[in-house]
Amino acid sequence: MKATAKANTNIALIKYWGKRDEKLFLPTNNSISITLDRFYTVTTVEFKKNITNDIFYLNNKKADKKDQIKISSFLDKIRDFSGTNFYAVVNSENKVPTAAGFASSASGFAALAAASIKAVGLELDKSELSAIARQGSGSACRSIYGGYVEWEKGERIDGKDSFAKRLLPETDWNISILSVLVNSNNKNISSREGMKRTVETSPFYSAWLDTIEKDLEITRKAIKYKDFKSLGEVVEKNALKMHATMIGAEPPILYWQCGTMDVIHHVRNLRLSGISAYFTIDAGANVKVLCHPSDEKKVYESLLKLESVQNVITCHPGKGITYL
Amino acid sequence: MKATAKANTNIALIKYWGKRDEKLFLPTNNSISITLDRFYTVTTVEFKKNITNDIFYLNNKKADKKDQIKISSFLDKIRDFSGTNFYAVVNSENKVPTAAGFASSASGFAALAAASIKAVGLELDKSELSAIARQGSGSACRSIYGGYVEWEKGERIDGKDSFAKRLLPETDWNISILSVLVNSNNKNISSREGMKRTVETSPFYSAWLDTIEKDLEITRKAIKYKDFKSLGEVVEKNALKMHATMIGAEPPILYWQCGTMDVIHHVRNLRLSGISAYFTIDAGANVKVLCHPSDEKKVYESLLKLESVQNVITCHPGKGITYL
Repeated sequence: MKATAKANTNIALIKYWGKRDEKLFLPTNNSISITLDRFYTVTTVEFKKNITNDIFYLNNKKADKKDQIKISSFLDKIRDFSGTNFYAVVNSENKVPTAAGFASSASGFAALAAASIKAVGLELDKSELSAIARQGSGSACRSIYGGYVEWEKGERIDGKDSFAKRLLPETDWNISILSVLVNSNNKNISSREGMKRTVETSPFYSAWLDTIEKDLEITRKAIKYKDFKSLGEVVEKNALKMHATMIGAEPPILYWQCGTMDVIHHVRNLRLSGISAYFTIDAGANVKVLCHPSDEKKVYESLLKLESVQNVITCHPGKGITYL
Repeated sequence: MKATAKANTNIALIKYWGKRDEKLFLPTNNSISITLDRFYTVTTVEFKKNITNDIFYLNNKKADKKDQIKISSFLDKIRDFSGTNFYAVVNSENKVPTAAGFASSASGFAALAAASIKAVGLELDKSELSAIARQGSGSACRSIYGGYVEWEKGERIDGKDSFAKRLLPETDWNISILSVLVNSNNKNISSREGMKRTVETSPFYSAWLDTIEKDLEITRKAIKYKDFKSLGEVVEKNALKMHATMIGAEPPILYWQCGTMDVIHHVRNLRLSGISAYFTIDAGANVKVLCHPSDEKKVYESLLKLESVQNVITCHPGKGITYL
C-alpha cells in the first residue's frame, strides 16, 4: 500500500478568491489556470498496519503540528472514501523555491491525493481525483491536469460536481511565465483568511463575481485560439480586480509592496515599447509575467535590472500528475 | 475693478471621485476636506475697459493656451453673473510646491472666484461664492472655507444647491497633515479623465457610492467630537476604496508607485508601534499622513528615513478665503 506521485503547481489566470463552502473548498466562481513545469511536489504515501497515527515528513523533516493536522485530516477523507483503517507515513518533497510566491498547497495536495488514492489501490477518473484534491486545498484540483485547466465551481451542496477539467494540453501552446520575486517575507495574511474576509466584508465582492463570467469566456476563447494578447489583457485585468476587491475589505487586505508596483509599471512600459507582456499577481507581493517565448530573454533581463527584483524564474506550461 | 484674494488648497478626507454633471462640476457624492495652511494661491483680477481678451499670468509668466482658455471660460461665467462686458488681467501666484501632489486647481479657482467677484463689485454669501468656485474646479468650492469643510452634492439640475459649508473652524482642532513626496513625475492620467473613466467603466463604482454615506456620517461625528482615531480610520479606508474603484476601471487606473506602498506600509507599522498615524492618497502617487501634533516630529523623521521619500512638508488646518 505504497505509491509516489508528482504534481506541478499552477498559477491562476482567472482567480479563485472566495468559498461558498469553507469545509468542502467549494468556490464562488470558476477559475482557469496554467500548470507550470518548474515548481512541483513529489509525495510518497504508505499506509501501514502497525502504526497508530499518521506521520508526515516535509523535505525530510518531521512537519510541524499544524501541517500534521492538515495532512491527517485530509487522509481521514481518503480513509472514509476507500474504507481502509490504516494510518500512513507521508514523505513530501517540495520543489517550490522558498518564497517564490507560489502556493505549495496546490502541488502539495494534488500529489498527496494522487499518491494516497493509488496507495489504497483505487483507480479513479482524473475528475474524481481532482474533486478529492480540492478538499485539501482548492487550487490543488487544477494541478491534476497539465497545461490549461478550468475548475468548475459546481452547483451541488456536496461538491461532487466541483472539479477541474483540461482546456488545452501543455504541449499545444507554449507561453513563458516568469516568476518575479520582489519580497521574500511571509505574507501577513493567509489566502484562506484573506478570502474569507473579502467575501464577508468587501463592498466590491458581488461586483467582482458579476464580472467573472465574461472574463472566463474571453479566457477560454483566447486559449482555444491561442490569442496571447487577448489572454494577457484579461488575465491582467482579472488580477487587478481581485486585488481591488481585497483592498476594499474591512480591514483592507493589501498584499502589494514597493517591488510589486515597480514590476507592474515595468510590464506596462514593456508594452509601450512593443513587447507583449502581461502580469498577474496572486495573494502576495510577488508578480508573474506572461510573454511570448520569443520575448522571454528580453523580458527576463529587463526584470532582473529592476532594483526591487530579487530573482526571476522562467516557467512554461507543465504536465499534470505523474506516478513515479 | 480690481481685487486680490488668497485661497489655501485642501485635502479630501472623504473623496470626491466622479461627476453627475461634467459641465457644472456636480459630484456624485458629498465630500469632506481640511483646508491646509501651507499651500495656497494668491490671485489678482482686474477687469479693464480697453483690452480685447483676457490675459492670464501664472507665477509671473504668461500661461499656456490651455490654461488661458480655462480661465477665460471661467471669467465668462463671472461676466454672465455680474453683467460686465470687460475682459480681465489675471495675475496668479501658486505657492503649491512643484509636484507636492496637491491639486493647485482647488486653491487656484477658489482665489480666482473670490478675486473676480470682489473685482466686479459684488458681495456674496460664502455659499454662493463656493458654488461659483465649484464651476472652475469641483474641489475649489471647499477652499472658500477654513478648517473642516463639507461639500454638499446637491440635488438640483442647475447645481445651485451644490456648495461647501464649514463643519469646524481651523482654530478648533489642530491636527498634523504631512505631505509626503515620493514621486515628482506628472501623473499619467488627469483627475478629470480618471473620474470619468471610473464612473463609466468600473464595476465597483456603485458599491463605492453605496459606502460613502456611512463614511460621511462617521467623519462628521469624528470631527464634531475631535475623535482622531475614528477620523483616521475612516479616512484611510475611504482613500483605499477610491483607489480600488479606480483599479477596477477599464483600462485600470493605477496611481500608486513603489514609494506609495512604502509609505502605506510604514504608516501601518507606525500604528503597530503605538503611534496613531493614518494615510490618505489623492489621485496621484504621493501620500498624506495624518497624526496628532504631539507625534508630528517622530512621524516626520521616520518618513524622511524611507529611501523612496523625497520630501515631507508638514501642514495644519488653514484659513478660508482672505482678501489682500
